[in-house]
Amino acid sequence: MAATVGPSTYFDPARVEELDESTASLVRRRIAALGPAYRLFYDRPLQLVRGEGCHLYDVDGVEYLDAYNNVPSVGHAHPRVVAAIAQQAALLSTHTRYLHEGIVRYSEELLATLPDEIGHVMYTCTGSEAGDLAMRLAKHMTGGTGVVVTRNAYHGVTTEVAALSPSLGGLDSLPSWVRVVPAPDAYRVDTTGYADLGDWFAAQVQGAIDDLEASGVRFAAFVADSVFASDGVLTGPRGMLAPVRDVVHRAGGLYVADEVQPGFGRTGDELWGFARHGSAEAPFVPDLVVMGKPMGNGYPVAATAMRPEIADRFGRDMRYFNTFGGNPVAMAAAQAVLDVLRDEALQENARVVGERLREQVRSLDHACIGDVRGAGLFVGIELVHPDGSQDGDLTLAVVNGLQRRRVLVATGGLHNNVLKVRPPLCFSDADSDRFVTELDAVLTELHA
Amino acid sequence: MAATVGPSTYFDPARVEELDESTASLVRRRIAALGPAYRLFYDRPLQLVRGEGCHLYDVDGVEYLDAYNNVPSVGHAHPRVVAAIAQQAALLSTHTRYLHEGIVRYSEELLATLPDEIGHVMYTCTGSEAGDLAMRLAKHMTGGTGVVVTRNAYHGVTTEVAALSPSLGGLDSLPSWVRVVPAPDAYRVDTTGYADLGDWFAAQVQGAIDDLEASGVRFAAFVADSVFASDGVLTGPRGMLAPVRDVVHRAGGLYVADEVQPGFGRTGDELWGFARHGSAEAPFVPDLVVMGKPMGNGYPVAATAMRPEIADRFGRDMRYFNTFGGNPVAMAAAQAVLDVLRDEALQENARVVGERLREQVRSLDHACIGDVRGAGLFVGIELVHPDGSQDGDLTLAVVNGLQRRRVLVATGGLHNNVLKVRPPLCFSDADSDRFVTELDAVLTELHA
Repeated sequence: MAATVGPSTYFDPARVEELDESTASLVRRRIAALGPAYRLFYDRPLQLVRGEGCHLYDVDGVEYLDAYNNVPSVGHAHPRVVAAIAQQAALLSTHTRYLHEGIVRYSEELLATLPDEIGHVMYTCTGSEAGDLAMRLAKHMTGGTGVVVTRNAYHGVTTEVAALSPSLGGLDSLPSWVRVVPAPDAYRVDTTGYADLGDWFAAQVQGAIDDLEASGVRFAAFVADSVFASDGVLTGPRGMLAPVRDVVHRAGGLYVADEVQPGFGRTGDELWGFARHGSAEAPFVPDLVVMGKPMGNGYPVAATAMRPEIADRFGRDMRYFNTFGGNPVAMAAAQAVLDVLRDEALQENARVVGERLREQVRSLDHACIGDVRGAGLFVGIELVHPDGSQDGDLTLAVVNGLQRRRVLVATGGLHNNVLKVRPPLCFSDADSDRFVTELDAVLTELHA
Repeated sequence: MAATVGPSTYFDPARVEELDESTASLVRRRIAALGPAYRLFYDRPLQLVRGEGCHLYDVDGVEYLDAYNNVPSVGHAHPRVVAAIAQQAALLSTHTRYLHEGIVRYSEELLATLPDEIGHVMYTCTGSEAGDLAMRLAKHMTGGTGVVVTRNAYHGVTTEVAALSPSLGGLDSLPSWVRVVPAPDAYRVDTTGYADLGDWFAAQVQGAIDDLEASGVRFAAFVADSVFASDGVLTGPRGMLAPVRDVVHRAGGLYVADEVQPGFGRTGDELWGFARHGSAEAPFVPDLVVMGKPMGNGYPVAATAMRPEIADRFGRDMRYFNTFGGNPVAMAAAQAVLDVLRDEALQENARVVGERLREQVRSLDHACIGDVRGAGLFVGIELVHPDGSQDGDLTLAVVNGLQRRRVLVATGGLHNNVLKVRPPLCFSDADSDRFVTELDAVLTELHA
């Protein structure tokens, strides 16, 4: 089975002749050097040269509204982050086998944002490496190898986490120690016979664990992106994931919260996506937390945080050294991001602007809009046929139509029929108005 | 069996009370935040705050000669690299799904330094990710899973390449699809019955391949650091690796050159370590080339280069996207490193200064110096007992003694009895004189 069922938003290299001469030439040189595994977005690939806040500029000076990029989370080329990187790079960029105040200070501040039970943090350069390390830790801790993920999960590109990413190579690509469960889709799942969606989802995961154990594979971990981005941005009701965590713990496994996409304030109400599923009285506490993308606003820095007993067990038997991970420049970038998030109240902005944006889209009069969901500035807009089935072709047309109108978004979900809207967190009401106006215009143009 | 047999140069946290109060406090806070899998160098950990060229400065302003760090290869905080990073970060830091001139230009220049047969390059953030990607490509291309590495190999920290790194967890940690061979140690191996060391080494690898196939594991790849750094800096005679490559190809496998440590001019005579094993008439051409550490002088950037047919096969079935890999800032840093290497003739400097350094060390009158070897500025100094056996305790004492004399080196080899000397490539004759003077003094002090 293919990775995703719907059409793709990637440029088809066979159509290079349709591009203007200068773009076509760069595309050809790029394919010659990088080979065929690299993809470009859009029917007409964009050559971007500059960014500022939520705005990007192409080589001809044309401006675009960025409603897609979740890495430059505090805004493209944020001056405080740029200055932090430049200043530290001019001083020193070594590694964690020397003492440095920066990593200690940042780690203390980062751990203070996590539940008390999460006591240690280890640094890598990418979310893939952080997820991979989480799996090494989880397997070492439990002695198991079995992992449960959702149907269209994406957890990264190393061998280990690509094996946990059916969105990359489809179900046929999965090894014998991986089981998939359908994602908790509040719009589509029939929960008849279950107390609620969380109860239904917990039953799916329990079934997958049972199936692993029946095959003689000891269960190690359940891994989930707390907003199920690649499954179609399935934020679901608050508290939905609590029953799953309990099932996982009863089976002796660890709960790995993949916060690479939801983390660092994007979901608005909390700094971490998993926190939506707990309360003040009953906090949601994962065993391992994987973070990355927005952590350095583009500087390659990522981390795995964990309950101390997991690090202690691993540290007794193994050392861990990541050459660039936690280096002084990475820590300076990450510290600047945390400072800007707080000083510019971007989590609160994500909450307010995201909620307003969803209301605006819900008020549009287009039958194709099946569902509008999300948390903070992680928004999914599901486009459907009149019979309610997934309309991937329309979604693709909308993405390219929005690009022509200078608004950048992408698609998600198994059928590629969910518009993924996740701009930098400085997205303003005016940016939101512009996005909604252009979306309305494109849908009208497409008679959708 | 333990990872390495000799004593370690890492700080023992049980001795934190022996440190001055300020250092002890930072060490305690660090352990509390990062946990026990992190290690610090030296009996007295160093708190470095600034670097310039081959010189590092601690928090008290004390200067150190850096004869160890191979990442800041063009010199600590090189102004051209720092400026390139700062300028590009202030403009744009996105990803490879948009077109950008920087990645195309750099890729063309990088590929021009490699054999003609290596036609594509793919970017990651770390050498671990690049090695992991090489294994995904090699296994996909060959349909096999079996890999052969050397006894104390180190190829990175993802699950996949940690499995190829007996130096991390010892032989017991290796999965069923990995075989180890003894490294080609020109100082210690008895090649009686073989034409030469290359012939002997090829026979070892052939034996390991036969053993894999006998166990029903199809051979995929042989992976070797071209200077066998973690096996003790075993540069060996030129041409030594050619017979192994032939054995690997006859068995239907791929030859993966791990150039993370030797690459980018360090070995002096060539830009790439594998090139030492070919000639103008018969160039040494690997199937995959993995590079990292010095590529961005500390900015996290790494790559896997390959024969085009390997990328073509993979690209037909899989897409590859690394969020930060090949981003405009990474490419600007890598471009600046390549420019500085050329403009400051650092490869030539490595050749000349490295050769002079080895001659100087060979001329020292200490019976404990068993062997002095290397290529360019990758130097191994093997310390031995009077009976010729490996003296790890002495080597550890020398490393800490040199640190007290403000010269930084580390150890390598299965018995940790090889001084690993691999400074930034701008190491001067004066730096070399200082290193040799201090080494002589420490050995005299130790009556060695």
